[in-house]
Amino acid sequence: MHNKGRRTIIVAKSFGFCSGVERAVSIVENLARQSKGVFTVDSILHNEREMARLEALGVKILNPNDSGEIVILPAHGATDIEVENLKSRFKKIIDVTCPFVIRTVNIIKKLKSEGYKIVIVGEKGHRETKVLKETAGESLFAVISDLEELAQFEKEYFSKIALVSQSTVSRGLSIDVSQFFLKHAFEFRFFDTVCPETVKRQEEAEVLAKSVDCVVVVGGKHSANTNRLYEIAKRINENALFVEDVDELRKFDISRCLKIGIVSGTSTPEYIIKEIVEYLESLP
Amino acid sequence: MHNKGRRTIIVAKSFGFCSGVERAVSIVENLARQSKGVFTVDSILHNEREMARLEALGVKILNPNDSGEIVILPAHGATDIEVENLKSRFKKIIDVTCPFVIRTVNIIKKLKSEGYKIVIVGEKGHRETKVLKETAGESLFAVISDLEELAQFEKEYFSKIALVSQSTVSRGLSIDVSQFFLKHAFEFRFFDTVCPETVKRQEEAEVLAKSVDCVVVVGGKHSANTNRLYEIAKRINENALFVEDVDELRKFDISRCLKIGIVSGTSTPEYIIKEIVEYLESLP
Repeated sequence: MHNKGRRTIIVAKSFGFCSGVERAVSIVENLARQSKGVFTVDSILHNEREMARLEALGVKILNPNDSGEIVILPAHGATDIEVENLKSRFKKIIDVTCPFVIRTVNIIKKLKSEGYKIVIVGEKGHRETKVLKETAGESLFAVISDLEELAQFEKEYFSKIALVSQSTVSRGLSIDVSQFFLKHAFEFRFFDTVCPETVKRQEEAEVLAKSVDCVVVVGGKHSANTNRLYEIAKRINENALFVEDVDELRKFDISRCLKIGIVSGTSTPEYIIKEIVEYLESLP
Repeated sequence: MHNKGRRTIIVAKSFGFCSGVERAVSIVENLARQSKGVFTVDSILHNEREMARLEALGVKILNPNDSGEIVILPAHGATDIEVENLKSRFKKIIDVTCPFVIRTVNIIKKLKSEGYKIVIVGEKGHRETKVLKETAGESLFAVISDLEELAQFEKEYFSKIALVSQSTVSRGLSIDVSQFFLKHAFEFRFFDTVCPETVKRQEEAEVLAKSVDCVVVVGGKHSANTNRLYEIAKRINENALFVEDVDELRKFDISRCLKIGIVSGTSTPEYIIKEIVEYLESLP
């Protein structure tokens, strides 16, 4: 908690990179210092400032025809097709996929070999969900991102169905979707693959949003876990703002907020939070 | 639907023995005709009239020191300890355990070998639940017969937990208990082992109870599935009666009921329903 002048600023306990992003960024940084031909598939994480910082160190985002020394797979994972394609173009492939995503991929492989239909709770366009979907292959039953999509399955009954989640969806949605399938299957198997770091931040956001005048949610606009934090904060506290960094925050008038809470996504570097706190403290 | 005089009598579509009881009774009857030393462990099913009929054919309920030719295990199953004990006392052991109970026993054995903690939704004193419990052995986590029992586990979190149900509990309870464990486990595995015949009768009882003046629930007082039917009927229609047979029904004054529904347990023979319908039709 920070108290300077008349404002109270409370930063949620969990902030800075989660362990998966921390690990990915540190591997990429080290490689960039050793080698000049370091490419990443897409962004390795969903934060523009952080990606710009890595680019300044020499890391390049892959174009379709690039080839070279080292290519780094994203923390959100890569599909087998992507990996196959990269093998012919690069000498080394470095996999920085988050361990929680790898765990889910392995669960899906096992479920597939045991004959389950697989439901993935996830965002349809998100890289991680695409990877999980490709892993499920023919065993995929559906990707669900909204409870309303379940209406179409109201009359179905399954013998063996299993559910896993993208690591950064809302744990509540994952459980709600499960409750539906419980009633529609002889065997229903549930894996709580929402990453614990994500769940913790969701819980902290919920508590914090109740006790402050305004909530500042900090993170990349493409970051699924940050979007969930914003949804949670906004549902509880109508004065919730979603910003990528301090420059974006400056555009809002928050002069009437005397108690401000800050929550942030797992790919938001600590220095962005620090800048925001300093800015808020400097306000009259 | 029967219409004689001013009364309408509606018998639920599903009545008479379920397939498991049908099979058990026919095996016992055949054996009793061939051999004189036929014993059954406990009652093979929960209906006193039907057990009396089988006794008249020469079937005896086992006493602790009996021994002889043939012993028949109950449709609700027998524990390994019971079977071991009987092997030394009888030449032949005939297993008429309901196939749905055998299926649940096999599921529990598999879950046990895969390292799950096992929750059984069931009635604590019921023979089937005792058999399932003994099968689970050290892997048993708890037998749950009421949602209120879950409060004690509110703060627990499990890595692998699985749930099966006694074949004759309410499917709704089984799902409600599952909803609790969904929130408390990394992996939760659910098997809908409530027997389909039981579920069907529960659903029919619910629909019928809404459309009649009185509901007559027919079955043995120790019959779990009949008790569930009575609970369902009584919740919807306060004029619900639970009787074993027509003699018990005669004790009630139902002269004011003009539209009467009849639902019955899976161990209630057809002739008992027939007697009840005839009695109701004969009323002024």
